[in-house]
Amino acid sequence: MFDRVALVGIGLIGSSLAHVIRREGLAGTIVVSTRSAATLERAAELDLGDVYEGDPAKAVENADLVIVSVPVGASGAVARAIAPALKAGAIVTDVGSTKGSVVSQMAPELPSSVHFIPGHPIAGTERSGPDAGFADLFDGRWCILTPLPDTDPDALARLSGFWEACGSKVDVMDPAHHDMVLAIVSHLPHIIAYNIVGTADDLEAVTKSEVIKYSASGFRDFTRLAASDPTMWRDVCLHNREAILEMLARFSEDLSALQRAIRWGDGDKLFDLFTHTRAVRRSIIEAGQDIDVPDFGRHVV
Amino acid sequence: MFDRVALVGIGLIGSSLAHVIRREGLAGTIVVSTRSAATLERAAELDLGDVYEGDPAKAVENADLVIVSVPVGASGAVARAIAPALKAGAIVTDVGSTKGSVVSQMAPELPSSVHFIPGHPIAGTERSGPDAGFADLFDGRWCILTPLPDTDPDALARLSGFWEACGSKVDVMDPAHHDMVLAIVSHLPHIIAYNIVGTADDLEAVTKSEVIKYSASGFRDFTRLAASDPTMWRDVCLHNREAILEMLARFSEDLSALQRAIRWGDGDKLFDLFTHTRAVRRSIIEAGQDIDVPDFGRHVV
Ligand SMILES: NC(=O)c1ccc[n+]([C@@H]2O[C@H](COP(=O)([O-])OP(=O)(O)OC[C@H]3O[C@@H](n4cnc5c(N)ncnc54)[C@H](OP(=O)(O)O)[C@@H]3O)[C@@H](O)[C@H]2O)c1
Ligand SMILES: NC(=O)c1ccc[n+]([C@@H]2O[C@H](COP(=O)([O-])OP(=O)(O)OC[C@H]3O[C@@H](n4cnc5c(N)ncnc54)[C@H](OP(=O)(O)O)[C@@H]3O)[C@@H](O)[C@H]2O)c1
Repeated sequence: MFDRVALVGIGLIGSSLAHVIRREGLAGTIVVSTRSAATLERAAELDLGDVYEGDPAKAVENADLVIVSVPVGASGAVARAIAPALKAGAIVTDVGSTKGSVVSQMAPELPSSVHFIPGHPIAGTERSGPDAGFADLFDGRWCILTPLPDTDPDALARLSGFWEACGSKVDVMDPAHHDMVLAIVSHLPHIIAYNIVGTADDLEAVTKSEVIKYSASGFRDFTRLAASDPTMWRDVCLHNREAILEMLARFSEDLSALQRAIRWGDGDKLFDLFTHTRAVRRSIIEAGQDIDVPDFGRHVV
Repeated sequence: MFDRVALVGIGLIGSSLAHVIRREGLAGTIVVSTRSAATLERAAELDLGDVYEGDPAKAVENADLVIVSVPVGASGAVARAIAPALKAGAIVTDVGSTKGSVVSQMAPELPSSVHFIPGHPIAGTERSGPDAGFADLFDGRWCILTPLPDTDPDALARLSGFWEACGSKVDVMDPAHHDMVLAIVSHLPHIIAYNIVGTADDLEAVTKSEVIKYSASGFRDFTRLAASDPTMWRDVCLHNREAILEMLARFSEDLSALQRAIRWGDGDKLFDLFTHTRAVRRSIIEAGQDIDVPDFGRHVV
């Protein structure tokens, strides 16, 4: 599909791409590049690519497709570093969890001779680093592309085809709408999870060991998201601030209403809300976005 | 272990008890009782017991162990109904998710000739009804007993032995502390999950179908808890009000601080919190209270 693909950043997302590109034969040559010598060495041990290159500019030379998979706060610097070495006609994309900020960081750095098409695969786990990747990560998941007004339709079609070959379904939307959607489906859930785990960790009336022991009664579901990479999530919070604050305001408003219903013993209101939300899980299962077994199919531990 | 065990209420918890009692041979006879004829019939179809009895008073006659497994708001009425028929020396226990309220509802109704020992197995799923139960539910999970000041130690030892035979580890604490612990490890997580799913469902800027499609990026983790039984959770909110409001206040305070850090772009503060919370998941996995595979071990869907 592409002669030469350069992966700049080889953590969970980058290494998952390496696996699926190899499995599906989507590149003649896979070039792997990452910031640190240690990660680059680990990537080589894991045999993630064909060529390993510490310097991102060298890595992208002659590449037809460049995929930047680094924390969103680093995307501007990476774009600046690779810009002079990019081949004319190359497609440059990224996988960052926020899009408005990535566009404003990367677009001004990149030459007009390349096709810059930002993207975001809606797939991930709470793990990070080159060992965390696996070829199935994108299977049946959506990948959102946020082309710019002047994006070449052929380049967009090629990139869509690439993600489909990785197992994804592709959606196209504008960056601002992406950021609003992700603020509610991903960023708010992670922030709330981090917050509740923090609250539980700070209590005096209940010990940490009690929280751990009895966590199977609900709390443990939040700890998965709250174990996600701190750098990635710091950057998401800093780079999608407006949409996140908007969603936090909605959430807090709703929580105040729920709190009042509890305070005043309004059982009907509580019952209504708790009934309403059940339907959402049913729809997610019907849409193939989660499995239909209790406890997420966890085995008894 | 017991000649005759009466299960009053045969939903998720009651039917799981029926399965494990049968598997482990913990009762000579299992008597099943439930409010509705339909559920009783279904329990019989599932072969959950030896005797089926619509009238709870009849069901508890001659039972050595009576386990009440109904929503906590119904425990007073059930205690009143069974009280006249209880055998002297019988152990009466429950499985309700709140304990202070259950004690104040049930204790005044029950004769002093029985041993009333409230309990709460810290095990469950988001499913309910007699079809949802399974024998392994209590395996490796904690069961908290909250004996009263005058509880007979022999009766407490027998009930502890019963739960251990069901696969549980037993802890003893007073009802008020139980309610505080559960407010943070279970009640707050459920309320937050219900709330965030409600918020997402009410937005105009993001459609319901977008929320469903992209839910694998975090949101879906909340929907499991938010699909739990509305009656049970209404009752929990109404019957553990003080502790829940206390935890909600802590949570909201912490969320305001996090919101400020996002608003002011305080990356260090965000990074610190997000690092801190990672350790909690590690401890839960080490304590055997969750599995150590990404995405809760969900298969790719
Ligand atoms: N994790 C998810 O669930 C998920 C899902 C969808 C999208 N994303 C997005 O995908 C991107 C990568 O996430 P990931 O989970 O793959 O991260 P990761 O596993 O932590 O890997 C990060 C990669 O970026 C490099 N990197 C880190 N800081 C850098 C910097 N300041 N400058 C240059 N390179 C840097 C790392 O290099 P070294 O190790 O060599 O330092 C590593 O190669 C992020 O933008 C994230 O928002 C993540
Ligand atoms: N689900 C969990 O994860 C979990 C975990 C630990 C403890 N608990 C506690 O266990 C108890 C039972 O929960 P569950 O999940 O087993 O519930 P469930 O599956 O919904 O079953 C509830 C049972 O209680 C009966 N019932 C409902 N309302 C009643 C009423 N007003 N009067 C008399 N009987 C009534 C039902 O009878 P009919 O079907 O015949 O109407 C059914 O037999 C609750 O107190 C809950 O707090 C639950």
